[in-house]
Amino acid sequence: MKTSLGAETIVYPTPVFIVGSYDAEGRPNLMNAAWGGICSSAPPSVAVSIRPSRKTYDNIVGSQAFTVNVPSVEHVKQADYVGIHSGRDGDKFEATGLTPVKSDLVNAPYVAEFPLVLECKVLQAFDLGAHVEFVGEILDVKAEEGVLNAEGKIDVGKLEPFIFSPSDTGYYRVGEFIGQAFSIGKKL
Amino acid sequence: MKTSLGAETIVYPTPVFIVGSYDAEGRPNLMNAAWGGICSSAPPSVAVSIRPSRKTYDNIVGSQAFTVNVPSVEHVKQADYVGIHSGRDGDKFEATGLTPVKSDLVNAPYVAEFPLVLECKVLQAFDLGAHVEFVGEILDVKAEEGVLNAEGKIDVGKLEPFIFSPSDTGYYRVGEFIGQAFSIGKKL
Repeated sequence: MKTSLGAETIVYPTPVFIVGSYDAEGRPNLMNAAWGGICSSAPPSVAVSIRPSRKTYDNIVGSQAFTVNVPSVEHVKQADYVGIHSGRDGDKFEATGLTPVKSDLVNAPYVAEFPLVLECKVLQAFDLGAHVEFVGEILDVKAEEGVLNAEGKIDVGKLEPFIFSPSDTGYYRVGEFIGQAFSIGKKL
Repeated sequence: MKTSLGAETIVYPTPVFIVGSYDAEGRPNLMNAAWGGICSSAPPSVAVSIRPSRKTYDNIVGSQAFTVNVPSVEHVKQADYVGIHSGRDGDKFEATGLTPVKSDLVNAPYVAEFPLVLECKVLQAFDLGAHVEFVGEILDVKAEEGVLNAEGKIDVGKLEPFIFSPSDTGYYRVGEFIGQAFSIGKKL
């Protein structure tokens, strides 16, 4: 029996994208975005939705670039911190002890300590009401060597990503493998 | 030390959105979409990217509506099945044993057996290259009563959602709670 929860932004999973950008003075900033996801395979693109009131919004409009940084479970406090505080009130890299690295491909910083980063240049921006959705072309994905398996693929158990749960505003780790896509469905 | 994986559509987590739609004859269809996510808080909206070659693409263009159905771990085979097969080759509800329920809000079917469904009407569609991104206004979210806690919020442990891992094309369950958003970061 289904019950109505109303017109709410509830779905599973939603990501914890830590978005890196520079302001006009070249100061690096981070924010925590749960509204986003991969949006096209070619060009490889990721969408991130940001409220125009955010410092990151101004930064991306100015630089036309951003990074998406994927934290591990061990970074949950830092990831949450950058979602609570505004870059207008202080340097969030400094406050969290994270290290900004200038991308060599786009005008945006990524987080040295996080295991997976996407370097993106803005292709389009869409006004969707409360949020503007930036579509970024993924120019490169960089991963810590320690999270790769022998075939050079991401080992999810080593990456230790986590999700955001919109209904109870909790963070939950990604757990064990349950099946191979494009394969397990053949057993039906 | 980071190593380059190239310009790939790799990020964590990506969702397993099972998209429900009707064709012009009112036949229900399902597909599996990993490219998407919540894209605005107001109006509450979800984005789903679909290749124009898919039957679901034609369906949504015609009906201007879709549902996003969130499967539990127990539905992983059905979820994968609808990602492997095309609705042009047969009725995927019939093949999977899933039950279509006509939404009372939009012209799209949802999956009776799945614990969480979003009923969406199309607001916009953006050509992003390989994929077209449909932005759907979430008119209602419906959940099985059994996945709610005493406060009427989703209990993630009861919902048992899973993610898609783009690098190794695996499905992984969502595991335990690791912290409260807008709170755990204050401890830094």
